[in-house]
Formats: sequence, C-alpha cells, structure tokens
Amino acid sequence: MGGDHGPSVVIPAVARAIAVLPGSVRFLLHGDEAAIAAELSKHGGVAGRVEVRHSDRVVGMDEKPAQALRRSKGTSMWNAVEAVREGQAVAAVSAGNTGALMAISKLILRMSADLERPALVTSIPTGRAVTTFLDVGANIDCDAERLVEFAIMGEAFHRAAHGVPKPTVGLLNVGSEEMKGHGEVREAHSILRHGGLDLDYRGFVEGDDITRGVVDVIVTDGFTGNIALKSMEGAARFMSNELRNALTSSVLATLGAFLARPALLRFRERMSPPPAAPLLGLNGIVLKCHGGASDRDFAQAIRVAVDLARSDFSAEIERNMRRLPAALAEQAPAEGAPPSQDDPGDAASQGAAE
Amino acid sequence: MGGDHGPSVVIPAVARAIAVLPGSVRFLLHGDEAAIAAELSKHGGVAGRVEVRHSDRVVGMDEKPAQALRRSKGTSMWNAVEAVREGQAVAAVSAGNTGALMAISKLILRMSADLERPALVTSIPTGRAVTTFLDVGANIDCDAERLVEFAIMGEAFHRAAHGVPKPTVGLLNVGSEEMKGHGEVREAHSILRHGGLDLDYRGFVEGDDITRGVVDVIVTDGFTGNIALKSMEGAARFMSNELRNALTSSVLATLGAFLARPALLRFRERMSPPPAAPLLGLNGIVLKCHGGASDRDFAQAIRVAVDLARSDFSAEIERNMRRLPAALAEQAPAEGAPPSQDDPGDAASQGAAE
Repeated sequence: MGGDHGPSVVIPAVARAIAVLPGSVRFLLHGDEAAIAAELSKHGGVAGRVEVRHSDRVVGMDEKPAQALRRSKGTSMWNAVEAVREGQAVAAVSAGNTGALMAISKLILRMSADLERPALVTSIPTGRAVTTFLDVGANIDCDAERLVEFAIMGEAFHRAAHGVPKPTVGLLNVGSEEMKGHGEVREAHSILRHGGLDLDYRGFVEGDDITRGVVDVIVTDGFTGNIALKSMEGAARFMSNELRNALTSSVLATLGAFLARPALLRFRERMSPPPAAPLLGLNGIVLKCHGGASDRDFAQAIRVAVDLARSDFSAEIERNMRRLPAALAEQAPAEGAPPSQDDPGDAASQGAAE
Repeated sequence: MGGDHGPSVVIPAVARAIAVLPGSVRFLLHGDEAAIAAELSKHGGVAGRVEVRHSDRVVGMDEKPAQALRRSKGTSMWNAVEAVREGQAVAAVSAGNTGALMAISKLILRMSADLERPALVTSIPTGRAVTTFLDVGANIDCDAERLVEFAIMGEAFHRAAHGVPKPTVGLLNVGSEEMKGHGEVREAHSILRHGGLDLDYRGFVEGDDITRGVVDVIVTDGFTGNIALKSMEGAARFMSNELRNALTSSVLATLGAFLARPALLRFRERMSPPPAAPLLGLNGIVLKCHGGASDRDFAQAIRVAVDLARSDFSAEIERNMRRLPAALAEQAPAEGAPPSQDDPGDAASQGAAE
C-alpha cells in the first residue's frame, strides 16, 4: 500500500517479477483486499502465485516514525514484516515510510548478532560494476565500532547481491593518508587494518571514488552517506536538465539529439537511481523501495530480495561479527590522538582539498 | 610556481586577466625569474603590468603541510602571502599545495575577528545561479559555533562575489525537520534561527539542494563538505564518460553528437568544476586554484580575487562576528537533547532516506 502509487505499481511489479522468476517464488500481498483485487484482475497469470492478506490500515507516508510505530500493529507494513518473522515470507519489500519501516523491522525482527541498528545500503553504478555504499541515512552518529559493523555487513551483502567472492572494502574519508579525517574514521581504519577480521580492506577512499569503482564496498556514517548520496543524485539531475537544455538549444542540436535518441535513453536508464535499499543487520530481509518507484524499479527490488534470500549473507555477517570483540581488543589503544586544531601545521594537514 | 603546470599556465592566465581588467590592476609574480621571463616573452603587452619577484625555492605539491611550513620562508608561496600582509598586494592566488597554503596564510595573515581557522569555500553551479558551499575540507571537526561562523563568512562572501544584496543561508542536514541530524547541526540551527544575527537563514537543506539553488549559501563541516563536493565531481565525471560512450555507441549516435557538438561543448563548459576556492576568515584575501587549473580557470580565479578585493566583505564578516557572543548566550541552553539511539522510534526518526 506504501509509496506514492500503492497497488497500481506493486501489482504490475509482481507481474513483471513473476515473468522472470522461477515458479517456486510466491508472493504475500498485504493491504486493502479490494484495491489489490482490482489491480490483480488486470494481470492474468499472477493470481495463481499470490496470496492476499487483508489489512484495514496503512502507515502514512508523512507520519513520524515514533508515532507510526505506536499505532502500526495490524497495518499492511507491520503484517509484511511480521510474516518474515513467522517464516511465512523470506523477505519483505516496501515502498512505504522509511523511518517507520526501520522502526517496525527492528522491533519485530530484532537485530542479528550483536549489531546495534540496521544500516541502509545502496548500490551506485560505476564505470566497472556497482559500488555498495552504506550507511545512507539510518545511523547519524557513528563511532568506530559502528563503522566496522557496516564494513562487515556491506561486504557480506555485496557478495550475496553481486556474486563477488571476496569484495574489497574502503572507508570514506577526506584523503587517503593515515592522518586524515576525524578520530572515528581513523580508529575504524586501524581496526579494519589490524583487527584480524576476514575482510579485504583497502584503506581510505574519497568522495569521487564512489562512482569510480576502486573498491566494491564503501563505508561511512549515515550523516555523510545520506548527504553524499543525495548530492550525487542532485548533481545527476542537474546535469540531465542541463543536457536537455543544451540539446534543445538549436535546430541542429535538436536534430542531433533525435538521431542519438536510443543512445541517450540507454544513458538515462543507466543513470537512474537504484530502486531499493536493503536494511542490513536484521534477523530477516527487508528492502525499502523508493517512494516514487516505478513498477520496473519495484520488480528489480523483488529480484534483489530473492537473491538475498537465496544467499547466506546473514550467516556471513554473524561469522565476522563473532570476531569483532577480539578485533576491538587487539586494536586498543587507538593509534595516535587527533592532531591539535590550534597548530597551523597539523590543522592544515587535516585539510583535504586537492 | 605551484600547481601541475606552474608559469606555463599562470602567465597566460595573467595575460587573459589583463585583457579584461582595468589598467589599474597590476600583478606581482613570485617565482623563478628565468622561468617567468621565458613565459612573459610570449605575451606582448603583459610586461608593463607585472613585476617579477624572484624566489629560489618552491613548496612541493606533495609536501606535508607541517613540514612545508617549517621550510617555507622565502618560497614563492610564502612571498606571495607575505606581500598581502605588507599591503603590496590586495590578494594572493596560488595553484599550489592546499594544506601548505592554508598553514602559511594563517601564520602570516592571522585570522580576522575571533574566527578560529580559515574555511575553504567553493561555488557550485545550479539551475538558477550558483550556490556558495563551505567548508569543503579545511575544518574536519566542527562544533555548532564553527558552523555559525561559516554561515557568517559564506554570506558575506556570496554578497561580495555575486552582488546579491541579502543572500539566503541554509544548513546541510539529512532532512528538513527540526529533529533531524546530530547535535552540532541542531544547535547551530537554533543559534542561526534565534540568535539575532543579521542573516537571512532558511533552515535545513539536503544534499540535492546544493545543485538545486534553493538558498544562496549552504553550510556544513569540512568532512561532509569535502566528501559531498568530491562525490558530486565524481558523479559528474562518471556521467560525462557514460554520455561519451553513449554518443559513440553507433553511427547514428555519433552523427547526432556531431550535429549537437556546439551545444554539448557549452554543456561541458557549464559542468566544469569551479576554478578557485577562497580561504575565508583571514586578514587578507587568498585564493586556492585547482592544481590542474587551465589558464582560463586561473584567469577566472584572478577576477574573483579582484572582485573580493574591491568589496568590503571582511568588514561584513567582522560586523556579524561581533554579534556572535550575544547570539551564543541567547541561544543557550541548546534546544532539546539528541534523541536516544536506543529507542527504535526516535532512532528511526533520524533516518533520512527518501
């Protein structure tokens, strides 16, 4: 029921997914029975693989998470996550209220291993493949241990989602030298480098490495990650607008754009933002779809959910999480204190431009 | 002497700048006399408006700032900044080592008013005009007071550089609601909103607002700012590459791109990163040019320096800085404690995706 469009996007998405997924994959549809039935009637061949679970109530897109949580029992979102906990579904996919979905998922499914809170992960296209990027907004204040948890979760997710046997991991910073950045990233760097975790850690990376694909997984706190992601989305949107303006600025340009139209459409397709952000670290698989997702986007999110359900990425997260206490003990005391802000030399050495 | 190209870029840039600037604008060129003379001989009409100040030594592009600072006296960079302090020059422009330039500038010029450290500011193109964005890497750890200082400096800079009488100011965050973000941004928000500073403060903005132009000035800490800026640059570079691939993917696309070539070149021009980042808050004007700047970029940086020198933006910074102690007192105690990370409702309310 969630997102900007509800069943009118979700049901066509299910129809698309069913067309490419094996017959063993079946769907529980949570929401208003009548609205769902109306959409289902437009898609032959779908009815045999879905089961409708009626719910009277929905979580509003604009509700504050804490408020939504209090009255969420029995909503379509609650029921979808509850079905994962009860083993009736292997994954939940929602285009609804992000904060509410996180709160409900954490309450119902609980965190896996000793993880503290879910992380929101996204996939960014690069010249070579995709970069797994987290956290993109679930955890605003992150200490070093939290950043290391993200590395563990992100690496297992990348292997599960993209079939890369040993993904490489980088930590987002303002420069690649050891002394760069604030205390938390430098401490996390030290744990990742010397803590004996089973990760192919490659050190610090910078903002422009996200789209360059120098490592498979890039880790940062949810404040920086959210702002970096939205900044890139904004830059991409701005460039698309400018390109459209340029290509309609003269008769010749318009003719040129017409001839290049198929190539430009493929370009636009490749630039579109990723359709789904999985919530990592829960005892169960939950994916958040963009509120404005198209049926094609939502179908893609369903396929990611199926891939994740087939993999044992939760077990991999747990395996590495078991090594974390030893890694933290080994690393202490933290390498080097933060440089004083008053010394112009040291202060400048934190400077990152260039 | 700095940057990737030295005099072979700087002298042609000076020639370009001289062609458009009034005759009263003159130049001191610091560096190796012979190298400068060789370049000057290629540009007639320039010699009458420049004066060469020989220096034997240069700051290396790869030197650590603290190390560069110790042996910087008598380098071309040192002499350029020293000339500003002595009133021989109204501004210094360098394409050299950023960290060293900051350290040397702070040491020689000292900070203006009660500012603590310089901020690096950049200009991002938007659909409407440009966004002034700071700090992009000089200050990694920022408390609320530092963020408010950035707002004061950025607003005065935007007025001086772009002639906007009353620039609007926003604070970068993961959402626009009051409860979003970490303690520092919420406290800065409260000071800016209720502290009685002479600023047109518009509240929180998000990452994609940087290129949208919803406010004139966007303020953030140097860690987030550097990563957001580089992420956008990376996204822009990635899109340009993909566009080039798309437009050479078939005969028709190539033909189309050929017809649209002038428009595509204008597009690329508009997307190029800003050539210079002024160091704000010093008793004097210092601009940092991209190390890889072209003569055209460097000429543009010179013009920005002249505009800044003609304005009284330093006086404006000082005027508002004098109100800061009262603003800090008025605002205390900070509005609301950070929400607990353990409560799933509040925790989720910090979530920012969507």
